[in-house]
Amino acid sequence: MNDQLERLNRLPLRENLRGLQPYGAPQLDVPVLLNVNENTHGLPQEVRSAIASRVEQAVGGLNRYPDREFTELREALATYLGHGLEAENIWAANGSNEVLQQILQAFGGPGRRLLSFPPTYSMYPLLASGTDTEYVPVRRGADFNLGAEQAAKAVRDTGANIVVLCSPNNPTGTALGLDVVEAVYEAGEAKGAIVIVDEAYAEFAHTGTPSALTLLPGRERLIISRTMSKAFALAGARVGYLAAAPQIADALRLVRLPYHLSAVTQATALAALEHAEALLANVEDIKAQRDRIVTELTAMGLQPAASDSNFVFFGGLKDPHGVWQGLLEAGVLIRDVGIPGHLRVTAGTEAETTAFLDGLRKLL
Amino acid sequence: MNDQLERLNRLPLRENLRGLQPYGAPQLDVPVLLNVNENTHGLPQEVRSAIASRVEQAVGGLNRYPDREFTELREALATYLGHGLEAENIWAANGSNEVLQQILQAFGGPGRRLLSFPPTYSMYPLLASGTDTEYVPVRRGADFNLGAEQAAKAVRDTGANIVVLCSPNNPTGTALGLDVVEAVYEAGEAKGAIVIVDEAYAEFAHTGTPSALTLLPGRERLIISRTMSKAFALAGARVGYLAAAPQIADALRLVRLPYHLSAVTQATALAALEHAEALLANVEDIKAQRDRIVTELTAMGLQPAASDSNFVFFGGLKDPHGVWQGLLEAGVLIRDVGIPGHLRVTAGTEAETTAFLDGLRKLL
Repeated sequence: MNDQLERLNRLPLRENLRGLQPYGAPQLDVPVLLNVNENTHGLPQEVRSAIASRVEQAVGGLNRYPDREFTELREALATYLGHGLEAENIWAANGSNEVLQQILQAFGGPGRRLLSFPPTYSMYPLLASGTDTEYVPVRRGADFNLGAEQAAKAVRDTGANIVVLCSPNNPTGTALGLDVVEAVYEAGEAKGAIVIVDEAYAEFAHTGTPSALTLLPGRERLIISRTMSKAFALAGARVGYLAAAPQIADALRLVRLPYHLSAVTQATALAALEHAEALLANVEDIKAQRDRIVTELTAMGLQPAASDSNFVFFGGLKDPHGVWQGLLEAGVLIRDVGIPGHLRVTAGTEAETTAFLDGLRKLL
Repeated sequence: MNDQLERLNRLPLRENLRGLQPYGAPQLDVPVLLNVNENTHGLPQEVRSAIASRVEQAVGGLNRYPDREFTELREALATYLGHGLEAENIWAANGSNEVLQQILQAFGGPGRRLLSFPPTYSMYPLLASGTDTEYVPVRRGADFNLGAEQAAKAVRDTGANIVVLCSPNNPTGTALGLDVVEAVYEAGEAKGAIVIVDEAYAEFAHTGTPSALTLLPGRERLIISRTMSKAFALAGARVGYLAAAPQIADALRLVRLPYHLSAVTQATALAALEHAEALLANVEDIKAQRDRIVTELTAMGLQPAASDSNFVFFGGLKDPHGVWQGLLEAGVLIRDVGIPGHLRVTAGTEAETTAFLDGLRKLL
C-alpha cells in the first residue's frame, strides 16, 4: 500500500468508498482527442463573441447571489425543446450528472432502488452509491439491444423505484424505441417509479427518431434529461437540464443547494441558446462523420453498432487494448470502455476522423 | 391543500422531504439589499475587466471538458491563503455548500452524525438531511457564545462523526477562540471525527483574530472551509473551497461529480484571485461600516453582538417582524432569522448603512 492510500485509509471514510478510485477518463495531452464524446468542432466565432459579451454584462452583478430560479434560462430551454414545454417544466444544474444526483436525492436514498441496463453510462452506479440508493443492474443481451418486454419485466422483477434508460445509449450509441419507454413507465405504475430517459445525445439521432419528450403529456413520473455538453459544444460550461411535469421541478427545489447555478453559467447557457442554430449546424457535420465511421469500420470487417449519437461503439477486435495503445501512439486517443472485443470512438471533424480511420487501418 | 402541493405529494418523494419548503431568503426587488450578507461594494472595474478577459479566453475551449483537477485554481487559492499551504491541500466546488455536501458524502451518511451549535448557519441541517446524515444540534447559551469545554463535552456526549464550527458564526457574527477548535478536535479523537471550521467570513475578522488555518499542521481530520462569495464579492460565481491535509482532497475526489467545476468558473475565480488586493481593499470599508452599525445600535439602546463578519446580529427588539416590515417599506431589506427579539443586517456601503440606520431610528 502506498503512502497516499495509507493516509486516506486513516480517515473515517464511508465504508462503501474504501478502495475506490476517482471516476474519470485519463486527461492526456494528445493531438486528436476522441475519447469523451466532446463536440470537437468547437464553437463558431459568433457564439464565442456572444458568450463573452453576455458574461461581461453579468460580471457587474457578480457580488450578488444569482437568480436562484434561473427563470430566463428555464424559459430559453423550454423554447429550444418545443413540444409545448414551458419554464415550469424545466430544471437545470451543473451538468446532467448533477441533475441526476438531485433526482436521486429527491426520489432515491436508503431502501430505494435504481435500475439501469448495462452496458450503459457508467456514472449511474456511482450516482446511486453517492446517494445511498441501491443500484440494480440488469444486463443487456449479446447484441446490446433492449426490448420493451425485457425492460418491463426487469422493472417488475426488481421492484425499482427509479429507472434510467439511456437513449441513445452510451457507450453503445443506439437509440431506444419509444415502446420501451412506454412499457417501462407502465411497469413502474405499481411502485410509482420515476422513469428517466437520459437523452444526452438526442440531437445526433437519425432524422425521424422521436424524442421521449413526445411522451411527457399525462406522464408525471417521466423525466427527460438533456445536456448542453454535446450538441451545444459546451462541455466546459457544465449545463445539464431536464423536462418533466412541474411537480418534478418542485421536488428538486427541496434538495438543490441554494443558488446552485452561477450567474456566469446562466449567462453562458443563455448566449449559446440564442445562437442554437449556428451551434446545431455542426451537428449535421458530426452525424456525417459518424455515418462515415460506421461504413468504413464495416468495410474493415469490424462490427460497429448502429449509432444515433456522436460516437461509434465497435466490436470484432481481437486485441482492443493493443489497438487503443497503437492509436494513442499515433496521436489519436479513443476510449476503452472495458467491454471485451470493443472500443468506442467519438466522431470528430473530417480530419480527425480520417486520422482515426487511417491509424486503425494500419493497426489491423 | 393547494393544487401544486397536491401534485407534488402524488410523487414518490423521500419521506423526510414531505411537507418541506425550498430553502432560501426571499429574492425581492428593493433598493437597499442587506439581507444575505453579500458584498454590496461590488467589483472594482479593473477586476470586472480581468474576469471578462479571462472568461473570453476560456470560451474558445468550452467544447472540451474542463480540467477535472482545476490545478491552476488550487495553486492560486493556496497562494492566497498562505500558511505554507500547497495545491494538494486545497479543494473547491460550486459554493461552500457544495464543499460541505461533498464532505458529508465522503464522511457522513446513514448511521453517522453531524453536530453543530445553533443558532448557526441554517444550511447545516439541510446538508445533513440531503446526505442521510443524522443532524445533532446542541444549542448555544443565551449569549450565543460557545466555550471550549461546552463544545468538547457536546462532541463526547453526542458521539458526533462530523462537527461544524462556524467562525465567525452566522447569524451571530462572533468568531470562536482557537481553543474551542483545539478542544473539539481533541474530543473527536476517540471517534476519529472530522472537524470543519466554516470561515466563510474570516476576512472580515478584527485585526489579530487568528484563523484556524494556523491549526492545520498535524491535524489530518481538520478542514477549514472558505468562500469567494463574501470578501471576494463573487456570490454570483459560486466558488467555495477548503484547506486540509491532502488526503481530505483525495477523499472528496471519490464523491465529487466529474468535472464539477466549469471552465468558466475556474477562469472567473482565477481572475479574481489575481486581483485579490483590489478586492480586499473594500473589506476595510465594510469593516468600518460594520463597526459603525455596532456603535450606533448600542447608542439606540439595542444589543448588537460583537461582529467579526460583514453583518451585525442585534437583539433588544420588542417587535422584530414589525421592524423588518417597516424597513422593507422604507426600501431596506434585512434578515429575520427567526430568533426572538433579534434581526440581522449586512454591512453595506456607507450610503446603504446610513439608509438602514436612519430607517431603524425612525421605527424605534
